[in-house]
Amino acid sequence: MRYLMTFAYDGTCYNGYQKQPSCLTIQSVIESILFQLNGCKQVSIHASGRTDAHVHAYGQTAHFDMEKSWNEEALCDAMNQMLPKDIYVLSIVKVKSSFHARFDVKAKEYIYKVNVGDYNLFEREYVYQYNHRLDISKIMSAVHYLEGTHNFKAFTKVDGEKSDYERTIYRASLQIEKDYVIFSFLGNGFLRYMVRNIVGTLIEIGEGKKEGEVIIDILKSEDRRRAGKTAPPEGLYLNKVYYEEM
Amino acid sequence: MRYLMTFAYDGTCYNGYQKQPSCLTIQSVIESILFQLNGCKQVSIHASGRTDAHVHAYGQTAHFDMEKSWNEEALCDAMNQMLPKDIYVLSIVKVKSSFHARFDVKAKEYIYKVNVGDYNLFEREYVYQYNHRLDISKIMSAVHYLEGTHNFKAFTKVDGEKSDYERTIYRASLQIEKDYVIFSFLGNGFLRYMVRNIVGTLIEIGEGKKEGEVIIDILKSEDRRRAGKTAPPEGLYLNKVYYEEM
Repeated sequence: MRYLMTFAYDGTCYNGYQKQPSCLTIQSVIESILFQLNGCKQVSIHASGRTDAHVHAYGQTAHFDMEKSWNEEALCDAMNQMLPKDIYVLSIVKVKSSFHARFDVKAKEYIYKVNVGDYNLFEREYVYQYNHRLDISKIMSAVHYLEGTHNFKAFTKVDGEKSDYERTIYRASLQIEKDYVIFSFLGNGFLRYMVRNIVGTLIEIGEGKKEGEVIIDILKSEDRRRAGKTAPPEGLYLNKVYYEEM
Repeated sequence: MRYLMTFAYDGTCYNGYQKQPSCLTIQSVIESILFQLNGCKQVSIHASGRTDAHVHAYGQTAHFDMEKSWNEEALCDAMNQMLPKDIYVLSIVKVKSSFHARFDVKAKEYIYKVNVGDYNLFEREYVYQYNHRLDISKIMSAVHYLEGTHNFKAFTKVDGEKSDYERTIYRASLQIEKDYVIFSFLGNGFLRYMVRNIVGTLIEIGEGKKEGEVIIDILKSEDRRRAGKTAPPEGLYLNKVYYEEM
């Protein structure tokens, strides 16, 4: 039986999502619990994609196969009983055996939170604390240049083996909630560090170091050095993963 | 020179506020930093009162003496540079050498947060997660019985050496913000576990296990066994300490 689970995590204490030798990762913790629930047989989970160290998720997804058939709610409850408090399964549904949590993704949404107000120590691992003035109207005017289908090579870590840097951003927006600037990006896929590099660039635009239209030039250049600094991981959340109706 | 500092902390990683041998506490961390800033001479800090392990503060206060005269803002900045990210000095002001952060307290305010909605893993150390139904109107009708001057022996841990259990609560209230029930208690002083025992009792009233008027009987009984369970520490915040105008 194949299951699709939707889960949240606080990435603070983990070396990212993906399993690595001698590292505590989200994947390794979940797999160790499914191993126990699967009669001590290895279960591999296949997520919609990895997230880096200190990055959080409100709604990551992964599929996995279990030997016996479980009631979805019972499996969800059993996992939450066993998981540490910083990983939480929101739902589990049975899916077709051909379903794949990464290959079948239609869209993903990331959120990035910046606190431009006073330091709040209770959010030190959950927002990017930014202590300088930002011209929000400049960022507002820049963000829509990201929408559409572009080569995002300038906004990612270039990897020799990789050749496909084209992605579509359906919606790039920001909203202001009290002292927080909350960016939201909906796209068909995201390259490594892409959201954090985009946010870092938008912040430099807000600081007045770059003009909004520079986004067009950066995209065209395909040159990482043209974009801004990588924004820190703690402000980033994988918010939602979209699939076709199942 | 005597200074009064107002500071916030996340109590999650500490064995409470007060210095203890071989334990990481808020006081020991702050004193170790002041020791360095005071030319490697011991500085004792005197807080408005202790808080227990996992209890937080938005506005704890403490006074201390330094050998040399510091600019208040510079001292504040220097401390925040050196402190871990879960302790943060909000302000420092010079005070008279007769000022005492505990003896001169006029009032203190505590807040207690209960989440009656879905579990939010990002707040697992910052609210009491309560998964059952509560009759808020019952709690509303009970809370005002706490106001006034009472013997609060039934709501504290009885200590053989202690004889003074009388305290005045100026205001006891609660408000609802989305899925959160936020209690607030303003009083001239609070006994150990008093707020958590009051909240535990109010929750039992909200569950329908006790009637609102039971507060009067519990106060009169001076018997800890009559009150409810001690609510967990992670929902509790020392919000503000009040002094005469200085």
